[in-house]
Amino acid sequence: MHYTIINNELLPSTKASLLVNDLSIERGYGVFDYFKILNGKPIFLEDHLDRFYQSASIMQLPVSKNRDQLKAQLQELMQQNNMPDSGIRITLTGGYSKDGYDLSTPNLIITQQPLPAGGGLDTTGIHLVTYAHQRQLAAAKTIDYIMAIWLRSFIKQEDAYDVLYHHHNNITETPRTNFFIVTKDDTIVTASHHILKGVIRKQVLELAAGQFNVEERSFTIQELYQAKEAFITSTTKNIWPVVNVDHQLINDGKPGPITAQLTALLQQRIQSNL
Amino acid sequence: MHYTIINNELLPSTKASLLVNDLSIERGYGVFDYFKILNGKPIFLEDHLDRFYQSASIMQLPVSKNRDQLKAQLQELMQQNNMPDSGIRITLTGGYSKDGYDLSTPNLIITQQPLPAGGGLDTTGIHLVTYAHQRQLAAAKTIDYIMAIWLRSFIKQEDAYDVLYHHHNNITETPRTNFFIVTKDDTIVTASHHILKGVIRKQVLELAAGQFNVEERSFTIQELYQAKEAFITSTTKNIWPVVNVDHQLINDGKPGPITAQLTALLQQRIQSNL
Repeated sequence: MHYTIINNELLPSTKASLLVNDLSIERGYGVFDYFKILNGKPIFLEDHLDRFYQSASIMQLPVSKNRDQLKAQLQELMQQNNMPDSGIRITLTGGYSKDGYDLSTPNLIITQQPLPAGGGLDTTGIHLVTYAHQRQLAAAKTIDYIMAIWLRSFIKQEDAYDVLYHHHNNITETPRTNFFIVTKDDTIVTASHHILKGVIRKQVLELAAGQFNVEERSFTIQELYQAKEAFITSTTKNIWPVVNVDHQLINDGKPGPITAQLTALLQQRIQSNL
Repeated sequence: MHYTIINNELLPSTKASLLVNDLSIERGYGVFDYFKILNGKPIFLEDHLDRFYQSASIMQLPVSKNRDQLKAQLQELMQQNNMPDSGIRITLTGGYSKDGYDLSTPNLIITQQPLPAGGGLDTTGIHLVTYAHQRQLAAAKTIDYIMAIWLRSFIKQEDAYDVLYHHHNNITETPRTNFFIVTKDDTIVTASHHILKGVIRKQVLELAAGQFNVEERSFTIQELYQAKEAFITSTTKNIWPVVNVDHQLINDGKPGPITAQLTALLQQRIQSNL
């Protein structure tokens, strides 16, 4: 049987539900985090827990469990489900509100699922299409994906993998990944503000710092179009090359050597943690 | 017993739940509408159903029931619950997604609840505080209230009733109501774009049209500060005077005569529908 945790209960996943007056269902209010498990070992777990507690704090949602208690629950779920290669999602909602609006005692949901099929290494590179949008409360990993999902039909129509958000012409992020460019002089650049700071983003910045000039700063769509390389980072994908933005090739439209080098360094670091 | 409908099932409300992989819980994706029942009669039901189907259409959520089928469900719920003065909320979510992201078959939830305690006529007038924010996909009544609820502590700290959103200095709406001003020359003005068009807003515009100069157009915070009267409209509140914005009095800080006149006209129209 496959299990899910809701608050303090381990339940068969087929029975894991919330009453419909939860504020996630009524008002879209909640935060979450997601980490990978490889070979039975959680990857960058501390970083993900740091961010989970930070998202909860920004969104004014008290977490009833401290870090050790939460880790014990994660262990219990991993043991019961026995899925050595998988992902775990921790969600914290606004809770069962009395008036359907004001925050209540949050509900905690922990689910485990197989890794997504498309999560492996992409070696050919993806296409993105820019879109003017700023995520609300961007520093928190909220459940607010209403714009991203609404844009799926536009993305399909543009024959792209996803949208790349910009705000007042400054590139920020895609709905589920951070975005990097490599400039003509081999500087690695990624947005510093108005984004969700990803766990893999942090790892890549650390790994790159030893070998490249690295800048966390604003950059425009025009600077992106002139980039030598571009890539996205996320827990699901690690690093994926971006070879085309707005139907324009990035450089020669092929994944670049610095992207490949960072990918190798990241793989190494992940392997060394297993 | 008190009942809720989920899809085609009438359930005790204590058992009305969604599995946690519903896209409302995982991604904040859904739409809803809410109408009042007075003396056993739904108020402005056709307007609310128009908007519900329109919100669903904008958000690319197919509604499995046509208007007559949906009305039959509403009737069934009203009969079972027997709450002659109450509110009904119809919610449509993104459904149980296979990959936790792409839209699936929507889940339909119909709940009935007592009218909110603070829903009556406010005769003294409320205080609002402006805040720079544009609702995402504003023309649809989505479940996206993450910013509005996150701002509750700011609102409390400002000793206000709610925030009043503006975008590039143009006043739009509050999170749950439309906003009107009366100018020095007795023109009634309300925002035309980037808002959710409320059912009571529509009624007020119709009622006002016969007797006043009415303009649906953009207006700035500065024009609001100079207004003679201001008020909000919503299904829950009908019309409430606004007497203070950003800690500045509107005119003499007392509810105005045109607001009172429109309130009387609206009450009349609602009564005549009962």
